[in-house]
Amino acid sequence: MCQSNAYLLDQAGGEKLLMEDVSLITPLDEGGVELIGLFGDRLTVQATIKEMDLLKHRIVMIESNE
Amino acid sequence: MCQSNAYLLDQAGGEKLLMEDVSLITPLDEGGVELIGLFGDRLTVQATIKEMDLLKHRIVMIESNE
Repeated sequence: MCQSNAYLLDQAGGEKLLMEDVSLITPLDEGGVELIGLFGDRLTVQATIKEMDLLKHRIVMIESNE
Repeated sequence: MCQSNAYLLDQAGGEKLLMEDVSLITPLDEGGVELIGLFGDRLTVQATIKEMDLLKHRIVMIESNE
């Protein structure tokens, strides 16, 4: 299984788990990132991608204010 | 194995395989994206991420002119 977990870093440097088993990641033209999970669940987050580590199954995003 | 292949879409809509077995993807502050492969090989590409499909093992990027 190759899904990853998505984490959000807030401006204070804290990290929280946003979504497990993310299968599709789409940066949006209008800003933000759309995450789609294994079962079709969707989440749009105002953030930018910082790093995706496919071996560690980690997608790390940073909160944006835009 | 959860690495993905990275593809680049050019302005004309063509798609080419840029790198196989990408394990780490990092958008760069100065623009572009750094790809690191399973064996530590690195490639920096002037592109933005369009979509990452972890089930299909596809990272699709679009050429940027910045």
